[in-house]
Amino acid sequence: MYAVHNQPHVLEILQGYKVGELSPEEPSLPAPGDPYAGDPPRHPALKVNSLKPFNAEPPAELLTENYRTPNQLFFKRNHLPVPAVDPASYRLRVEGPGGRALALSLAELKSRFPKHEVTVTLQCAGNRRAEMSCVRPVKGLEWGVAAISTARWGGARLRDVLAHAGYAEEEEEAGERHVCFEGLDKDQSGAAYGASIPYRTAMGRGAEVLLAYEMNGEELPRDHGYPLRVVVPGVVGARHVKWLGRVSVSGEESPSHWQRNDYKGFSPAVDWDTVDFTTAPAIQELPIQSAITEPAPGATVPPGELTVKGYAWSGGGRGVVRVDVSLDGGRTWRVAELTGEEQRPGRAWAWRLWCLTAPVPPDCAALDIVCKAVDASYNVQPDTAAPIWNLRGVLSNAWHRVRVTVAED
Amino acid sequence: MYAVHNQPHVLEILQGYKVGELSPEEPSLPAPGDPYAGDPPRHPALKVNSLKPFNAEPPAELLTENYRTPNQLFFKRNHLPVPAVDPASYRLRVEGPGGRALALSLAELKSRFPKHEVTVTLQCAGNRRAEMSCVRPVKGLEWGVAAISTARWGGARLRDVLAHAGYAEEEEEAGERHVCFEGLDKDQSGAAYGASIPYRTAMGRGAEVLLAYEMNGEELPRDHGYPLRVVVPGVVGARHVKWLGRVSVSGEESPSHWQRNDYKGFSPAVDWDTVDFTTAPAIQELPIQSAITEPAPGATVPPGELTVKGYAWSGGGRGVVRVDVSLDGGRTWRVAELTGEEQRPGRAWAWRLWCLTAPVPPDCAALDIVCKAVDASYNVQPDTAAPIWNLRGVLSNAWHRVRVTVAED
Repeated sequence: MYAVHNQPHVLEILQGYKVGELSPEEPSLPAPGDPYAGDPPRHPALKVNSLKPFNAEPPAELLTENYRTPNQLFFKRNHLPVPAVDPASYRLRVEGPGGRALALSLAELKSRFPKHEVTVTLQCAGNRRAEMSCVRPVKGLEWGVAAISTARWGGARLRDVLAHAGYAEEEEEAGERHVCFEGLDKDQSGAAYGASIPYRTAMGRGAEVLLAYEMNGEELPRDHGYPLRVVVPGVVGARHVKWLGRVSVSGEESPSHWQRNDYKGFSPAVDWDTVDFTTAPAIQELPIQSAITEPAPGATVPPGELTVKGYAWSGGGRGVVRVDVSLDGGRTWRVAELTGEEQRPGRAWAWRLWCLTAPVPPDCAALDIVCKAVDASYNVQPDTAAPIWNLRGVLSNAWHRVRVTVAED
Repeated sequence: MYAVHNQPHVLEILQGYKVGELSPEEPSLPAPGDPYAGDPPRHPALKVNSLKPFNAEPPAELLTENYRTPNQLFFKRNHLPVPAVDPASYRLRVEGPGGRALALSLAELKSRFPKHEVTVTLQCAGNRRAEMSCVRPVKGLEWGVAAISTARWGGARLRDVLAHAGYAEEEEEAGERHVCFEGLDKDQSGAAYGASIPYRTAMGRGAEVLLAYEMNGEELPRDHGYPLRVVVPGVVGARHVKWLGRVSVSGEESPSHWQRNDYKGFSPAVDWDTVDFTTAPAIQELPIQSAITEPAPGATVPPGELTVKGYAWSGGGRGVVRVDVSLDGGRTWRVAELTGEEQRPGRAWAWRLWCLTAPVPPDCAALDIVCKAVDASYNVQPDTAAPIWNLRGVLSNAWHRVRVTVAED
C-alpha cells in the first residue's frame, strides 16, 4: 500500500538543530499525478515510518525535552493525502436533529462559540508496535515509543456546537448514540477518513471535546488538520479526525473502515483467518502507558549515577499517580519524580513527564532499565508483551525495557 | 487486634446446603462486655477471616453459582461491631450548604425520593490478598478470591438527597469537593467508621450513588448496613459506608483513618518504615480484575474436556470486554464466554461471569490454568503479583492461576 522508509539514525540529522529553532526542509518537487504531491514539508528530525501517507515520530530523546511538544516535532499520523483546504470557502457541515443542517465558516466557529483551551496528549493506537512485532509479526507501521505527543489545543467545544445545532445533554435512559466525524481527506475511490465517539463523551457536562483551530497557540498546521480538527481528550488518536468536514449524530457508530474494521483489540489467539471485527469494541479510552525516552537502548552510560527519563499517560482523564523504575529488570523498584502541568481529577488529559536519578550498582556491566506506571484507577501496565499481542499490534503497553551498557570506571 | 480463625475446608460444612435453601446458624451466646455480642448470626458456609470484627467470604465455587449473590453468601467486611439501629427513631443527618441540616427518617427517605435500583458489584480492596502475601508478608486479612459479590440494590439516589438539601450539580471549575459519610459503627473511643467520595462521583448527571435500604429485593441485612448504607457503583467497597448516620460536603476528604491512612496503593519499594500516606491517592475506582472459581486449586480433573468458571469486573463503570483463559500457564489462550446482565456503556457497574469449556491436552498430568480480563478502556491485568506488591496487600489483580492434576484415563 505504501513504501516504508528507513531513516539513518537521527542524531546526525539533528546536528545543528535545537527545539525552538526548527526550520522545515524545502518541499520536494511534486511528481505528476501523485496524490501526495500536495503534502506539506516536514521537519527532518522526524523518524519516518511511512512517507505516503506520511507517518513519523520524533526521536524519543527529543520527545521529553518539552512538556508541550513543538508542532513540528509532534508525531504525524496520516491515513491519506493531506487535503488542501481554502480557509475562505471552508464550511463545517453540522447535521442537526430532524434533517436540519448548519454550514459554519471558520469565522463563525471562532466568533459564535467561546474559545476553549485544554492541554491534551494524543497517542496513536499503534504506539510501541515495534515491541509487539518482536513477539510475532503484526500488520501495521513500526512505531517506536514516540507515537505520542502533547499540545495545548484551542477551539470551540463540540458540545457548544452540537447544542447550537439543537442537540441536548444526554438523556439518562436514551439509547446509545454516537457523534460521527468525516474528514476532507479522501482515498482514490472518494471515501473519506471517518470515526465516531459516544454521544456522552461529546455532550456530558463539562465535556471538553474540541473542534480545534489552534495548536500550541498557532494556527493548526496542515499535517494536524488545518483548518479544523477534532480533539477528544483521553481517547485514542484515531478518533481525533483532522480536516474535519462533517459532524452528525447517529444511532450507530461511524461506518468508516477505521471505526468498524480497525483500531480494535483482540486476544492473542485471534489471527487474520479467525478475526471477526464485530466481536470487539472500537478503541476509545486508552489504557495506562509509560515509556523510557532516556537513555537510548544500547547506549553506554557512565558509572556512578544514572538519570532515566520518560513519559506516562492514561486514557479517560485518569491521572498518572506513580511511575516505578527498575534498573535490574524488575526485581527492585524506585519511585520516579513526576513533572508537568497540574492534573485536574477525572480530567487529567495530558501526560506526566518523569525522571529518576539513581546510583548505578557497582560492578555492574549492564542495566536492564524498566518502567511501569499506575493511573488514578490504580490500573497498571502488564509485565510482558506476548500475552497482549494482537494481530494489529495496537494497545502495546507492557513494561518498557531499555538495556544499556555501563562504561568501565 | 482480632483473632483470625482458620476454618476447616468448607466442603464438609457445605454438605446438606444448597444456595436458596440456606438457613443461618443459631446465634452463639453473648459474652458479657463483648462489643461484638450483638452481632447478627451468619451463614456457616462462609469462610471466616476474622470473627471480631466479622470478615468472611463465600466459598469460591458457590460465588459464581448465581449472577446476584444471595445476601447470606455475600462477602462480609466489617471494621467494627455491628450497631443495633432502631428503625423507628433512626434519622439520617444531611448537612446542607450554609449550616442547615436535614434529619431524614426512613419513611421520608422512601417516600420523598424516587426509588432507584441498580445491580452493583462490591469488591474489597483486599480481595486476593492471600496471593500477595505469598510474595512477601503484608498487613491485612487473608482474603481469597471471593471478597467480591454482586447484588441488586434499591434506595434513594444520593444526588436527589443532596439536591433536596440544597446542593447543585457540579460547577465546572469549582475546586475539588468531597461527599463525606459517617457510619453508626464506632470503636471503643467513640470514633465512627468514615469515608468520602469526590463530589462529581455523587452529583454528576446520571450518577447512581445510592442510599440503599434494599438488597436483592429484601430489607438490608444487619451485616450489610441496616437500615441504610451507601452504594457507590464502580468504587472500592471501603467507600460504601454501612449503617449510615451522616452525610456532609467538604473541601477535604473524610478525616477518617480509613480514608487518609489506609486503602491506598504504594510501590513495592515502600515499607512500614518509609510509607507516607499523604503521597498516594485514596483508592476510589478499582482496576480490572478477574479470578477462577472452578476448578479449585489442587483439584483433580478428569481427562477429556474441562470447564473453567470465574468472574471479571472493572471499576468506574468500565465493562468487561474479554476474558482470556490459558491451560498452559499463559503460553496459549482461549476466549471465554461471558454471561450476566446487559452492560450499559460507561455504567457497567456489575461483573460478568465467564465460562470456558476446552479439551484437556492429551498426556498432560497437570494444568496451570490462568485467567486475565480486559476492560472497556482496554486495561489488562498484570502478569505477576510481585511487581504490584504493596505493604497493605491491596489492589491484588495479577493473572489468577489455579494448578490442577489431570486424572489418568
